[in-house]
Amino acid sequence: MKRVLMLHGINHNMFGKRDPKQYGTITLNEIDEKMQALGKELGVEVVSFQTNHEGTMCERVHEAYLEGVDAVVINAGAWTHYSYGLRDALGILTVPIVEVHMSNIHAREEFRHHSVFAEIAKGQISGFGLDSYLMGLRAAVGAME
Amino acid sequence: MKRVLMLHGINHNMFGKRDPKQYGTITLNEIDEKMQALGKELGVEVVSFQTNHEGTMCERVHEAYLEGVDAVVINAGAWTHYSYGLRDALGILTVPIVEVHMSNIHAREEFRHHSVFAEIAKGQISGFGLDSYLMGLRAAVGAME
Amino acid sequence: MKRVLMLHGINHNMFGKRDPKQYGTITLNEIDEKMQALGKELGVEVVSFQTNHEGTMCERVHEAYLEGVDAVVINAGAWTHYSYGLRDALGILTVPIVEVHMSNIHAREEFRHHSVFAEIAKGQISGFGLDSYLMGLRAAVGAME
Amino acid sequence: MKRVLMLHGINHNMFGKRDPKQYGTITLNEIDEKMQALGKELGVEVVSFQTNHEGTMCERVHEAYLEGVDAVVINAGAWTHYSYGLRDALGILTVPIVEVHMSNIHAREEFRHHSVFAEIAKGQISGFGLDSYLMGLRAAVGAME
Amino acid sequence: MKRVLMLHGINHNMFGKRDPKQYGTITLNEIDEKMQALGKELGVEVVSFQTNHEGTMCERVHEAYLEGVDAVVINAGAWTHYSYGLRDALGILTVPIVEVHMSNIHAREEFRHHSVFAEIAKGQISGFGLDSYLMGLRAAVGAME
Amino acid sequence: MKRVLMLHGINHNMFGKRDPKQYGTITLNEIDEKMQALGKELGVEVVSFQTNHEGTMCERVHEAYLEGVDAVVINAGAWTHYSYGLRDALGILTVPIVEVHMSNIHAREEFRHHSVFAEIAKGQISGFGLDSYLMGLRAAVGAME
Amino acid sequence: MKRVLMLHGINHNMFGKRDPKQYGTITLNEIDEKMQALGKELGVEVVSFQTNHEGTMCERVHEAYLEGVDAVVINAGAWTHYSYGLRDALGILTVPIVEVHMSNIHAREEFRHHSVFAEIAKGQISGFGLDSYLMGLRAAVGAME
Amino acid sequence: MKRVLMLHGINHNMFGKRDPKQYGTITLNEIDEKMQALGKELGVEVVSFQTNHEGTMCERVHEAYLEGVDAVVINAGAWTHYSYGLRDALGILTVPIVEVHMSNIHAREEFRHHSVFAEIAKGQISGFGLDSYLMGLRAAVGAME
Amino acid sequence: MKRVLMLHGINHNMFGKRDPKQYGTITLNEIDEKMQALGKELGVEVVSFQTNHEGTMCERVHEAYLEGVDAVVINAGAWTHYSYGLRDALGILTVPIVEVHMSNIHAREEFRHHSVFAEIAKGQISGFGLDSYLMGLRAAVGAME
Amino acid sequence: MKRVLMLHGINHNMFGKRDPKQYGTITLNEIDEKMQALGKELGVEVVSFQTNHEGTMCERVHEAYLEGVDAVVINAGAWTHYSYGLRDALGILTVPIVEVHMSNIHAREEFRHHSVFAEIAKGQISGFGLDSYLMGLRAAVGAME
Amino acid sequence: MKRVLMLHGINHNMFGKRDPKQYGTITLNEIDEKMQALGKELGVEVVSFQTNHEGTMCERVHEAYLEGVDAVVINAGAWTHYSYGLRDALGILTVPIVEVHMSNIHAREEFRHHSVFAEIAKGQISGFGLDSYLMGLRAAVGAME
Amino acid sequence: MKRVLMLHGINHNMFGKRDPKQYGTITLNEIDEKMQALGKELGVEVVSFQTNHEGTMCERVHEAYLEGVDAVVINAGAWTHYSYGLRDALGILTVPIVEVHMSNIHAREEFRHHSVFAEIAKGQISGFGLDSYLMGLRAAVGAME
Repeated sequence: MKRVLMLHGINHNMFGKRDPKQYGTITLNEIDEKMQALGKELGVEVVSFQTNHEGTMCERVHEAYLEGVDAVVINAGAWTHYSYGLRDALGILTVPIVEVHMSNIHAREEFRHHSVFAEIAKGQISGFGLDSYLMGLRAAVGAME
Repeated sequence: MKRVLMLHGINHNMFGKRDPKQYGTITLNEIDEKMQALGKELGVEVVSFQTNHEGTMCERVHEAYLEGVDAVVINAGAWTHYSYGLRDALGILTVPIVEVHMSNIHAREEFRHHSVFAEIAKGQISGFGLDSYLMGLRAAVGAME
Repeated sequence: MKRVLMLHGINHNMFGKRDPKQYGTITLNEIDEKMQALGKELGVEVVSFQTNHEGTMCERVHEAYLEGVDAVVINAGAWTHYSYGLRDALGILTVPIVEVHMSNIHAREEFRHHSVFAEIAKGQISGFGLDSYLMGLRAAVGAME
Repeated sequence: MKRVLMLHGINHNMFGKRDPKQYGTITLNEIDEKMQALGKELGVEVVSFQTNHEGTMCERVHEAYLEGVDAVVINAGAWTHYSYGLRDALGILTVPIVEVHMSNIHAREEFRHHSVFAEIAKGQISGFGLDSYLMGLRAAVGAME
Repeated sequence: MKRVLMLHGINHNMFGKRDPKQYGTITLNEIDEKMQALGKELGVEVVSFQTNHEGTMCERVHEAYLEGVDAVVINAGAWTHYSYGLRDALGILTVPIVEVHMSNIHAREEFRHHSVFAEIAKGQISGFGLDSYLMGLRAAVGAME
Repeated sequence: MKRVLMLHGINHNMFGKRDPKQYGTITLNEIDEKMQALGKELGVEVVSFQTNHEGTMCERVHEAYLEGVDAVVINAGAWTHYSYGLRDALGILTVPIVEVHMSNIHAREEFRHHSVFAEIAKGQISGFGLDSYLMGLRAAVGAME
Repeated sequence: MKRVLMLHGINHNMFGKRDPKQYGTITLNEIDEKMQALGKELGVEVVSFQTNHEGTMCERVHEAYLEGVDAVVINAGAWTHYSYGLRDALGILTVPIVEVHMSNIHAREEFRHHSVFAEIAKGQISGFGLDSYLMGLRAAVGAME
Repeated sequence: MKRVLMLHGINHNMFGKRDPKQYGTITLNEIDEKMQALGKELGVEVVSFQTNHEGTMCERVHEAYLEGVDAVVINAGAWTHYSYGLRDALGILTVPIVEVHMSNIHAREEFRHHSVFAEIAKGQISGFGLDSYLMGLRAAVGAME
Repeated sequence: MKRVLMLHGINHNMFGKRDPKQYGTITLNEIDEKMQALGKELGVEVVSFQTNHEGTMCERVHEAYLEGVDAVVINAGAWTHYSYGLRDALGILTVPIVEVHMSNIHAREEFRHHSVFAEIAKGQISGFGLDSYLMGLRAAVGAME
Repeated sequence: MKRVLMLHGINHNMFGKRDPKQYGTITLNEIDEKMQALGKELGVEVVSFQTNHEGTMCERVHEAYLEGVDAVVINAGAWTHYSYGLRDALGILTVPIVEVHMSNIHAREEFRHHSVFAEIAKGQISGFGLDSYLMGLRAAVGAME
Repeated sequence: MKRVLMLHGINHNMFGKRDPKQYGTITLNEIDEKMQALGKELGVEVVSFQTNHEGTMCERVHEAYLEGVDAVVINAGAWTHYSYGLRDALGILTVPIVEVHMSNIHAREEFRHHSVFAEIAKGQISGFGLDSYLMGLRAAVGAME
Repeated sequence: MKRVLMLHGINHNMFGKRDPKQYGTITLNEIDEKMQALGKELGVEVVSFQTNHEGTMCERVHEAYLEGVDAVVINAGAWTHYSYGLRDALGILTVPIVEVHMSNIHAREEFRHHSVFAEIAKGQISGFGLDSYLMGLRAAVGAME
C-alpha cells in the first residue's frame, strides 16, 4: 500500500482552538481523520505529522526520504514564505510534493503571495479550507500514478 | 440542479493538438467530458465554454451573471497574468470562482507567478494537469454548499 | 455641428445590471441620454459606442479618424491599465481625448493608479460617477474651441 | 446657502504673471471670479483662499472644519506630491474634497503622477486649465447633493 | 515551395492612412506587395494576415500550426509589450519566428523596450521601417534553411 | 532643574476637535497638562510648543539649541515622513531626542512606516496614544541621566 | 491580578555576557527583576520566558492564549525581521502586544527597520535599553485598561 | 550693474552657531560678506536672503521674477531633496540658477544624492564649503554673460 | 562610392576559434568577406575593424567622424551593455548606426537585454548569426539613402 | 593547542545520503575526518557540530563564546540566506568566522546570492565541495595568527 | 610650487571637433591653456593628461600617487558612471580630487545622475562648460590649503 | 606538468605601494612568488599576468584558450563588478576558473557584492588577503583533478 505523508507546519496545532469566528472550528485531528478516511477510499495510507520546529520538520522529511514515502502533502503555514531550510529538506525528496493552504494566499498580505517551495513542488492548492487538504491528497495520489 | 460554468481561456482550444511530448495529448473535449462525468457524480451540471477572445469571454461571464450560475471554474490561460478586463467581469459575479492551471504557474517564468484574478477568486489550484480541473470542480461544489 | 465620440469600454454594458448596492443603478443607456441632453445644451452632437472587444474599439477609433470627429470622451474601463493597443489607436487621433472614470482610480487598487492613455490625453476626470462623463463632455467641448 | 471653499496652493499667486507663452495669461483673480460666477449659477457661495505657506493652508482647513463648509475644491500645486501634512489636514474634513490641476499631471514628469491626497479625495480633474476649476466646482456641488 | 506567414498586428491596417509627416505614407498593401516581390526573389511564398483582434490573431497562428507553415514574420504592434496570450499561441509553433518593428522600440518609451515574445523568437529587427519587414523575410528564409 | 522640550507638529492643534469616534477626545492642552504633571513627578520642567509651520518648528529647535535644553520629545505628525528640513534642525542638537507617535505608524499606510528622524533620534515610541507621550518623557529623562 | 507575559527572543540569554563595551552589562535576570518590581508597582504579575527556539516561542504563545494572559511584551530579537511563524502565533492572541527593542532598530542596518509583527502589535518602543522594557510594561498595562 | 540673488535655505541661519568641530565656524554673515566682496570684484551686486519658511522663500523668488534679477545662487539645504514647491517657484525664473552645497551631497546619505532642482538649474557645485558659494557666484556671472 | 564602417567589438577576434558546438565555426575573416561581397553587390565599400580595447574602438569612431563615413554597422559584443564611453563616441557621429548581434540578446541573460547604444542607433538586429551582419549592411545602406 | 569550531547547518546531516548523482557521496563524517586530519597537520584541534535547529546552533555559538574558541568555520546551509538570528549569535564572537559553501552560491538561484552573515564574516569560500571546508580551515588558521 | 593634475577622460580629445552647434567650439587645448593661465594666477602648476584608455588613465593616476601631486581635477566623461576601476585608482590617492562636468549631469539621462567617484571625491562641479574646469581648479587649490 | 594561469586585474600592480596602514605591504611580486612556491609544492606551474587594460586581459585569456592552460585563478579587481567583456572572454575557457578577492567583497560597498563572473566560475574565495590567492591555487588544482 502506498504511503502519503501529511506535514502540518508551524502553529497548526492551534487549528480549532482559536477564535472560531475568524478561524473556523475544525481541529488538526479532524483534518487528519478526514485525510485518513479519504486515503482509505483512494487506497493509500496517510501518515500525519505536526511540529512547530523547523529542525524537527526537516528531520521528519529526512526520515521520509530514508524510509521511503510515495508522496508528500504539506501545509507549512508561515514557513512557506521564508524557510529555505525546509525547502532544501523537501528538495531532497524525489516523490511528488503537494503544497496546500487553507486560505487563498494570493489574496492575502503581499508577503504571503510567494512560496519558497513552489519551484520544487508538483503543484499548489490554496483557498478551500479542509477541501484544500483533501484535494491535496487526491492530487498527490494522482501524481504518484 | 446546480450549475457550474467551466471557462477555458485563450489558446486552450489547442490542447492535445500541439507537440504531445511537451504538452500531453489530452484535448479540451476530453477535459470537458471528464468534468461532466465528475459533475454527474457530484450532482451538478457542468457547462463549458472556450474562447480566444477576451470580449467574448467577458460577455459569457455577463450572461452567467444575468442567467444565474452557481459557481465558476476558470483556466484563463495567459490572460491570468494581464487581463484586468476579465478580472472586472469576474468581479461582477457573487458566486465562488475557482482558478485552475494545468502547470504549476509558481514554478514557471516570473510573469506567470502573479494572477490578476487572485483577489476575487475563492482559491487557486495549479500544477496537476487534468486533475487541476477535476479538483477545481470539487472545490467549486464544496464552496457552493 | 461638431461631433463628440463617447467610447465605453470593457464590461460597461453591465452598468446598472450589477449589484446596485455596490455599483449604483444607472445604466449605460441612461448615461448616453444624459450625455446627449448635455450635448444638445452645449451645441454638439454626441455619438456613443460600447464594446467589450479591444479590436472593435480600435477599429471604431480608426473610423473616427477617417470620418472626422471633433473630440473623444473615453472610459475604457480596465483597458485603461494595460491596453497599449488602444493607446496606439487613440494616438492616431489629433483631436482632444478626455479620459473619464466613474470611481477615483487613484484611490483604488495600485494597478488602477496608472493610465496607459495619460500621455496622449488632454486630461483626466475620475471619481464623480455620472458627473465624470458630463464634465468630460464639457471638457471636450472646451478643448475643441 | 451652501459654501464651497476653493484652496489655491503654493506659487499659484503667480498665475498670469509668468511667461504667458508657457503658462497662459489667466490670473488667480480671474479664476476666482469665474468660480464665483459659476457658483452663483449653481446656487452656492464660493470662498477662495491662496497661500504659499503649508502651515497657513492647514490652518485654513482646520478653520473650515470648525466653521463648517460644504465642500472643498483644491489645487495644491506642487504640495500635491509631497505634503503629507496637508493630506492629514484635509483628512480631518468629512465633506467632499475635489482635487483639480490645470495641466494633466499624469502626462508630465514622473514625480507629478502621484497625488498624496488621492486616497482622501472624492475625485480628481486634471488637464483642462480654467475648466478644471469650473468642473471641480460642478463636481463638488454634485457630490454635496 | 516553402511558405512564410507575415502577421500584422493591432492598428497596422492604418499604416499610410495617418498623418504622413509623423508616420510615413506606406500602406499595409504596399508592404505586402514588397514582401511578396522579395519572397518571389528568394523562392518562398509569402502569405499576409492582419487583424486588430488578439483572439483572431491567435487563431490564425493555430491554423498555421495545423496547416504547416515554414516560418513566421510578425510585427504585433503594441501587443508586443503585453499580449502573453499571443506569446503562448506563437509558442506552439516549432518553426522560426522573426519579430520586426518599424521604429527602434529600444529608443522609444520605456514600456516599448520589452517584448514578451523575445524568449520564443529566433530574433528581432527594429528601426528600419519597410526594411525591417524585408530583412525579416530574409532572416526567416535564412533560418528555415 | 532640567528642562525637556515637548514639540507638537503639524495639525496637532486639532487633537480633540476632530471626529471623536475616529480620533479620541483628548486635546493638546490635556496632553500638555499630563506631561507637566509627570514632569513634576520626575523632577523636570516640561516646556511645550506647537506649530503648523515647518520653519517655525525649526526656529524653535534652533532656539532650544542656543538656550540649552536637556532633551526633546517630538511628535512631528506627518512631517515625520518627509521634512528633511526638520531633520537637519534636530540634527543640530546634542541632547537626546525621543520620537513619539499616538498611533502605531508601522501598522498604517506604507508612507508612514519610515521616519526621516530615525537616524538622529535616541529612540521611537509609537502606538499608545497619550501613553506614547508620557513614556516619551520617561525615556527622555532616562536618556538624560 | 492581571498577568503580563514578557517574551525574550533569540540570543537574549546572552545579555550581559557579551563584550560589555559594545553591549552593556545588564543581564536578562536583571531585566526580569526590574520588570517584576515595576509590575508590582503597577499591580500586575509579570511572567518571563526566554528561548532561542522559534517553535518553543510559538508554543509558549499558544499556551498563553489557552491559559489566558492579559498582555504580552516581546523583544523577539532578530526574529522580528523574518519570523512570520512567530507573527502568526502572536496573531492568535486577542490581548495587547507591545514590541520592545533595546536599540533603535530604525537607526541600524536596513534589514532591521521592518518588523513583521508591526501590523498585529499595539505599538512599538525602541532605543531605550532597559527603559524600553519598563515602558513596554507600562504601555501594556495602559492598553489592558 | 547686474544683480545676483543669493538664497540661503532652511536651518542655514545656524551656520557657525553649531558644534564647530562638526560644522565649522563660518557664519551666514561671513559667507554673505565674502560673496559681496567677490561680487564687487566681478562687477555685480549680490543680494542675500535667508529664510526657514518654504512659503517665504517662494515669495522671495516670485519677487525676484517680478523685479528682475540676473541670476540666482541657491543653497536650499534639506529642501533640495523634497521641496517641489520651491522647484516650481524657481522654474518661473528665466535667468541662470546655480545650486551650491557646502558638503558633497553625492557622498552623504542616499536621500541627499538627488536634487529636485537639478532639471531646472544651470549647474551644481557641491563639497567645497565656503568655496562652493564663491564658485557659485563666479558660475552665475559666467552664465549671465 | 559610399563607405560603411563595420566595427567588431570585444572578444570577437575569437569567432570560429572557440568550441564549434557552442559557437559555430564562422571566423571574423569570413564574416568580413561576406560583408564585402554583399557591399560590392549593394554598391558600397565595407571597411572592417576589430579591437578588444574600448579606447581604440572610440578612437576608430573619432577617426570615422573626422574622415567621413556614410554609415556604421556595429556588433560591440559585451560592451553593448555597459560601455557608455563607446556610446558617447558613437553619439558624435551623424550618420546611421546599425546595431547587430549574432544571438537574440533579448532571449539571453537579463543583463544582455539592455543596449546602452539603443537611444542613438537607427535600429537593432539580433539573433540571426551571420545574417544579422548582412542584414545590418542592407539596413545601413537603406538608411543612407 | 588552538581550537577551531566547525559548524554544520540545516540538512547537512543528509550529506552523502541523498541522490549521489546530484549531490555526491561524501558524508558529514567524512568531511569531519578530513577536517580533523588537516587540523592535525596545521596544529589545531577541530571540533565539529551539526544541528537542524536554529536555536541549538545559536546556543552552540553562545557556548563557544563563553568557553573560548579560536576561530569558527561555518556552512550554515539555507540559513545563510535568512537566519538573522544566527547572524546575531555569530556577531557575539570576536574570533574570525569563515563562511564556506559546497556549491558556488553566486551561480545558483537568486535567493542564494546573498549571505546574511557576510558583514560579520572574515571571508567566504564557495564552490569547491570538500575543498571549500579544507580551505576554510586553512583560512581560519591563517586569520587566527 | 604645488602641482595639480588635470585628467581628461574618454572621448574628450574630440572637444571642439564635433558639431559646434551641439557641443560648442572649445578644444581640449584651449581648456588646458585656460587652466594653465589660471594655475599661474593661483600659483600652482597644472599638468594635463588625456586618454581614451581606462588602463592608461589608471596608470597615470598610479604615477601621480608615486611621484606626488597636490590635487587632481578630473572630468572622466562617460567613465564617471561605470568605471569602478578608475574609482579604485583614484581611491589610492590621498590628495583632494575634484570632479568636473561640462554639462549638468543631474539634468541629463538617468544613467548620468550617478557618479561612481562621488564617495571618494572632495566635491563635484557640473553644468558650467569651461567654467566647470576653472572652478574645479580653484576648488582644488582651496582644498589643498 | 599542468599549468595554472594567475590573472591580476586593474590597479593590482599597486599592491604594496599604497598606504600600508590601509592596504598592507605585500606586493604583487611577493604574491606571485608565494603562488609559485605553492605551485611547486602542488606540482603545477604557475604563470602570472597583470594588466590594467581590459582588452589586454581579454587577449591574454584568448591566448590561454588557444595555447591551453589547465586552470585560471583570477582577481580582476574592480572589473569583477562591471566588465561583461572579461566575463565573455573567460566564458570561452572550458577549464576551471577560480575567482579570488583579498577583501570580503560581500562585506564592502553594495556595488562590490555582485560578481559578473560568478555564473561561469567554479567558485569564489574572498576576504583572506594573500591566503585568498593561495587557496585559490589549491582550489584550482583540486578542480583540475
